[in-house]
Amino acid sequence: MSAQFSERLRERAVQIHIAEHLRARLERGEKLRVKLGLDPTAPDLHVGHLVVLDVLRDFQDEGHTVVLIIGDYTAMIGDPSGRSETRPVLSAEQVEANAETYFEQVDLVLDRQSIEVRHNSEWLAPMTAADILRLMGKATLQQVMQREDFAERLKAGAPIGAHEILYPFNQAYDSVAVKADLEIGGTDQLFNLLFGREIQKAYGQEPQDIAVLPLLEGTDGVQKMSKSLGNYIGISEAPAEIYGKTMSIPDQLIEKYLRLISGLSAEEVEATLTFKPRDAKAALARQLVKRLHGEEAAARAEEDFDRKFRQREVPDEIPERVVSNPDDLVGTLVEVELAATRGAAKRLIEQGGVRVNGEKSSAETKLRDGDVLQAGKRSFVRIRLK
Amino acid sequence: MSAQFSERLRERAVQIHIAEHLRARLERGEKLRVKLGLDPTAPDLHVGHLVVLDVLRDFQDEGHTVVLIIGDYTAMIGDPSGRSETRPVLSAEQVEANAETYFEQVDLVLDRQSIEVRHNSEWLAPMTAADILRLMGKATLQQVMQREDFAERLKAGAPIGAHEILYPFNQAYDSVAVKADLEIGGTDQLFNLLFGREIQKAYGQEPQDIAVLPLLEGTDGVQKMSKSLGNYIGISEAPAEIYGKTMSIPDQLIEKYLRLISGLSAEEVEATLTFKPRDAKAALARQLVKRLHGEEAAARAEEDFDRKFRQREVPDEIPERVVSNPDDLVGTLVEVELAATRGAAKRLIEQGGVRVNGEKSSAETKLRDGDVLQAGKRSFVRIRLK
Repeated sequence: MSAQFSERLRERAVQIHIAEHLRARLERGEKLRVKLGLDPTAPDLHVGHLVVLDVLRDFQDEGHTVVLIIGDYTAMIGDPSGRSETRPVLSAEQVEANAETYFEQVDLVLDRQSIEVRHNSEWLAPMTAADILRLMGKATLQQVMQREDFAERLKAGAPIGAHEILYPFNQAYDSVAVKADLEIGGTDQLFNLLFGREIQKAYGQEPQDIAVLPLLEGTDGVQKMSKSLGNYIGISEAPAEIYGKTMSIPDQLIEKYLRLISGLSAEEVEATLTFKPRDAKAALARQLVKRLHGEEAAARAEEDFDRKFRQREVPDEIPERVVSNPDDLVGTLVEVELAATRGAAKRLIEQGGVRVNGEKSSAETKLRDGDVLQAGKRSFVRIRLK
Repeated sequence: MSAQFSERLRERAVQIHIAEHLRARLERGEKLRVKLGLDPTAPDLHVGHLVVLDVLRDFQDEGHTVVLIIGDYTAMIGDPSGRSETRPVLSAEQVEANAETYFEQVDLVLDRQSIEVRHNSEWLAPMTAADILRLMGKATLQQVMQREDFAERLKAGAPIGAHEILYPFNQAYDSVAVKADLEIGGTDQLFNLLFGREIQKAYGQEPQDIAVLPLLEGTDGVQKMSKSLGNYIGISEAPAEIYGKTMSIPDQLIEKYLRLISGLSAEEVEATLTFKPRDAKAALARQLVKRLHGEEAAARAEEDFDRKFRQREVPDEIPERVVSNPDDLVGTLVEVELAATRGAAKRLIEQGGVRVNGEKSSAETKLRDGDVLQAGKRSFVRIRLK
């Protein structure tokens, strides 16, 4: 990063606002306070989070301070309208337990000791009604309503709890409280990051620069990676899971994953992209396990995977099929034409002739997106869920 | 009111919500807490406020409790966006001085001793940010945006400070805090009154009934009576002012004023309406002064007015003219064709031949809406502003 953006930030940022300002500060050798917010209701990180964490690590390496904000305040209040199931009420203990879970994962990338950890209840809980009124007076309703999820719900006639208006204000005020110089987030955070600038200005602070990073698609190759969509690779998953899930991504995602989360240099990425897709994917999978579990675990995961699949002569090109009921293995065998009838499918299972990802299956086996379904020795289908 | 609505409430209410519920409570002889909110930034009452005050007096006479809420909380905070000039910041002393001004006027109608006076800072100031979040969680943004002034500004693209959303919540929460059974207000308060019901329900209270009363047009006969529009008759104005301003209202307002604010019974109103307009208006003017300053003052105001106008043979029917620059008496005389040229107008003024409401005028006299402008003995024009 010395005297410039890190290569990683320059290559990846969808938008830096204001780039000239940030560059000048870095060139002057200023030490920045780089803010990252954390939702303590969802502490499980997936590899998509590596996009942001890698950039933060670069800042740490250059002596800047990563300020991690645990949004415990609203988490402890929950959603007073009772409408949102995704915003459960957490006790202070749960918040701390979740934060610890979070740190264990973040630890894989960042230097935990040098992170400045703050809880936003520190400045939000003591606020009075008058303070809230003043805070909300810093922006118009129209500005807040530009936030994408508000705009969409308004258009769709879906209810927005009036209290929800407070959330972007709280999040923006966090930047005031920690005097953030730079905030980093995914493209879905653009409004919040910009709003932080506005509120800092209104409180007489120099507004933070912001760097917006791309969101990674999940293993389905379609939607953004998300635990709730089931298309994620968890940062703390076992080596075999990380390796296997990575091997299940569609080929067209290989390059993006390599560039954004492999941790490989640009040259290494280019070299890897000259491989056949199957081999490039294997290199990516090995590299991801290596980042998160070390070299040895990566080698073992690869060996295990190869033994199960390659040595059983799983072909490089497996046809993909979207299935309608992945919980019904018998019906699925008929649907993907690995069996002619449900009766034939049942017999095939009973005889041990059906494998999922190389493991013998029973009629109760439930299929997941990306699973390789095998009937007999030579028939393979990769399962896709819608 | 015994066992029923007061005749006054039944005759006047534009809407009672929920009328059956309120009637049943009154029939059961329940003693109600009847809420009225007061904006301490505008303590000057005009006769339009008598519509509400008379109804409240009826409730007092039947032993119900009028709960007067002084909205000191937001008045002391002001408008944090700095956008609104109509919402100045008041000190606690100013709030109390204004409240005293208000009480002196209310005293003309209500029994001041039995009013329960509350300041909403009592329950709003101790609220925490979490309390505000919970309060706002009781309604959706869409509900709040139905409030007429919000809806209009949204449509017109005029900014709405995000903090303004709090005001209806605060006002509604006042009903929770005082456990209001009934709230009374003008038609412009309909949203706020209904919103009070919603918030009471959300806090587990039986929602207040509401009675919505009509707004009175001002002396211009067009816009609602308002100090800022200059078309008002102040409750604490001098007898001669009240009498004179009342005599200046357009004839088509006489019936409405008689019915809504004269304090006369329905029979007396009917009898008065059989008079010629000039005499009905004089009866109204006398009655208003009598209500606010007593019988003797009313008689004297009438005599004074008559001496000035009727004895100077002011005709019953005075032509009205809208003038473009009421601050320019010379130009106005030409405009309304009481003088042929500015020079002639100036000479007429210098010779003492121009009177406004019977008083000799100088070239500096400024005209107001409803003034009677007289040139010589026989030429009269009633001035209308736009």
